[in-house]
Amino acid sequence: MRAEIITIGDELLYGQIEDSNSPFVAEKLTSSGLKVVFKTSVGDDITRIAEAFETARSRVDVIIATGGLGPTSDDLTKKAIVKTFKRNLVLHPEILKNIEDSFQKRGIPMPSINQNQALIPQGTKALSNLWGIAPGIFLEDENTLFFALPGVPVEMQWMLENEVMPMLRAKRVSGSTGAESFILHRKLKTTGISESALFEKIEKLIDPKEEIKIAFLPTLLGVTIRLTMESEEKDPAETKLDEYERKVREILGSLIYGVDEQTLEEVVGRLLFERKKTIAVAESCTGGLLGSRITNISGSSRYFERGVVTYSNQSKTELLKIPPEDIEKYGAVSKEIALLMAEGVRKLARSDFGLSVTGIAGPTGGTPQKPVGLVYIGFAYERDSFAERFIFGQDRRSIRERAAQAALNVVRLFMLNGQRI
Amino acid sequence: MRAEIITIGDELLYGQIEDSNSPFVAEKLTSSGLKVVFKTSVGDDITRIAEAFETARSRVDVIIATGGLGPTSDDLTKKAIVKTFKRNLVLHPEILKNIEDSFQKRGIPMPSINQNQALIPQGTKALSNLWGIAPGIFLEDENTLFFALPGVPVEMQWMLENEVMPMLRAKRVSGSTGAESFILHRKLKTTGISESALFEKIEKLIDPKEEIKIAFLPTLLGVTIRLTMESEEKDPAETKLDEYERKVREILGSLIYGVDEQTLEEVVGRLLFERKKTIAVAESCTGGLLGSRITNISGSSRYFERGVVTYSNQSKTELLKIPPEDIEKYGAVSKEIALLMAEGVRKLARSDFGLSVTGIAGPTGGTPQKPVGLVYIGFAYERDSFAERFIFGQDRRSIRERAAQAALNVVRLFMLNGQRI
Repeated sequence: MRAEIITIGDELLYGQIEDSNSPFVAEKLTSSGLKVVFKTSVGDDITRIAEAFETARSRVDVIIATGGLGPTSDDLTKKAIVKTFKRNLVLHPEILKNIEDSFQKRGIPMPSINQNQALIPQGTKALSNLWGIAPGIFLEDENTLFFALPGVPVEMQWMLENEVMPMLRAKRVSGSTGAESFILHRKLKTTGISESALFEKIEKLIDPKEEIKIAFLPTLLGVTIRLTMESEEKDPAETKLDEYERKVREILGSLIYGVDEQTLEEVVGRLLFERKKTIAVAESCTGGLLGSRITNISGSSRYFERGVVTYSNQSKTELLKIPPEDIEKYGAVSKEIALLMAEGVRKLARSDFGLSVTGIAGPTGGTPQKPVGLVYIGFAYERDSFAERFIFGQDRRSIRERAAQAALNVVRLFMLNGQRI
Repeated sequence: MRAEIITIGDELLYGQIEDSNSPFVAEKLTSSGLKVVFKTSVGDDITRIAEAFETARSRVDVIIATGGLGPTSDDLTKKAIVKTFKRNLVLHPEILKNIEDSFQKRGIPMPSINQNQALIPQGTKALSNLWGIAPGIFLEDENTLFFALPGVPVEMQWMLENEVMPMLRAKRVSGSTGAESFILHRKLKTTGISESALFEKIEKLIDPKEEIKIAFLPTLLGVTIRLTMESEEKDPAETKLDEYERKVREILGSLIYGVDEQTLEEVVGRLLFERKKTIAVAESCTGGLLGSRITNISGSSRYFERGVVTYSNQSKTELLKIPPEDIEKYGAVSKEIALLMAEGVRKLARSDFGLSVTGIAGPTGGTPQKPVGLVYIGFAYERDSFAERFIFGQDRRSIRERAAQAALNVVRLFMLNGQRI
């Protein structure tokens, strides 16, 4: 069954808020094996809402609409249902009684405007609303299953899970479509390699006839490889995804740092914890972001000893014992200073590892020799230390985010491969 | 001019991520006076992408599509353009040269699949991409202006602002649509006060007949009050918004920390800079996040001297000279230790202000006396020091984010009111 999600409300088109309802609905539908093929947002305009319903009716089997069921004049979903599906509104005495009861329970007189909420298009089923007043609406029209839900997230979520999903499951079992199909995903997360370089490496695995589809999703912190498989049975599909993942991993090795929702700080934290290693960080351009990433993880106090944000040169000298003449000679953003910062913080904290970041986050402060985006990452351990040079593009925020990610990756690769990257 | 935004990518329909591109595009278009009437998301399926283009072409004047311009086989936007607008793909030598140059600059051999990105539908204009490889595409077809932009947010945002918006503005000036109407917004940002407490304070200003509409938008870091006005003339509407804002400010005073896109670190940074004050921070539960917030601002080295992330008790003693017996006696999360941390880092850095955060970010480590979410913020200055106690709800991430926000707000209120909050 193909589905379309329609979210209704002017605020969705002003762009000030993200629409959190449609990802929630999409995830529920997808994990139950429906295929969401379109998502549409439309404002509080009866003609356009009806147009969106009409378009959806022509192209999908299931429509889930959210929003526009409130009592006020900008709530137009029911009128658009009347227009699209040619039904009249009729007063539903049982719903009216429920609404009256709920006001009585709260000891508030019912505003007359709330009576409107007991008007329901003829021949439709009201869906109960645990958390609010407005009932949802279900109607079946030729081959379309149409559901209208409230826009308030908590009301919508309860109604979707407790009213809509059971009906959809029942429809699918009784329908003639036969067995259900599931869409399964596996996400393999990489960092430090471009989308096209990844593609070239695993291109030979990509076969249009293959039932597992592969997609490359670039983000600021790295490229995620997403494997997708549609199947009628969950377990054999998981096995096939496992096999495919193994083939990808054979090629990419430690370029993959995690799976699905794993973060790099989680992976690095687990490695540090398992190997009983402690770490301390010295940051300049990231200003605390690297420490913040590491301590995102509950329990990080077992391996994270301390951090210093040595923003001024004086703080580098005082806390990390870096000679001022070295800063003068090499510049604060240099391989030499990155090494001294990593060694200095390791000594200060008496930790196993010292990690440092120094760079030019911009937008000002760049020179032809040392452009904005230049970042050195230093790493010190018992026997030695090394530093890596990076050039990150884009704006201040991105440079800092990418520098922290690269620093975490230096630690991961050192622990996996026992050497520098 | 009516506009439709089309976002392309399977991930938008699986519900795993929120679509951050379409709110950005919507905001830019709306604030320039275009009316966004539909937003559509569609997966990586050439037939459905073409169908979305076709539907949009029939109902709006301007189409902005994002995503699907990458080099890999799941990037199908250009093929859908070929299908919808009946154009052939032609190799654009200048773009090919740009792509080759950009790889050469980075010293990386160009993967051959990147050549595909120099293929452009015939009779279209390539839009330059400051932050990436894939050019955007503009075409004019009968009455439709069609733009295809990359899906990577930073690339899309730059191209929208620097390529698309100037073209749209030029088109509108030369067009014959007569009087335009603008939707103007003004956002007043608060923190540390609940939505309902704010509502009660300014309820008397809310009049349904008032042409300025008011909305309360709660976020993790505070509640934003949005004023909205639709008008055919920009200047008188701005004046009315100014007047209304003044009335709100008369009531809320320093509860409002900023306007529109201002961040708290920007406001605090400007105050520190203007008053020639320096600050140093000592963090425990925020792990560097507070330093990271302060150094988000370019030029923050003029007032941010250093930070320490004293995660272990030993680091509190060594770096901040906090007696171990005090940590033993009061616990690391206590008013006393917050004070000592603020005073200690102020002394260490010889800065004007010392700011500290210590708390229990959870999910473990809470007790009935000291629950998860308990945070103390300490502030030290020349003459004195003080500490404030907070209880933040929700998960680890939220507690940390809210603690950093509250700490910045302590500094702001101290500087504005010359005293503790």
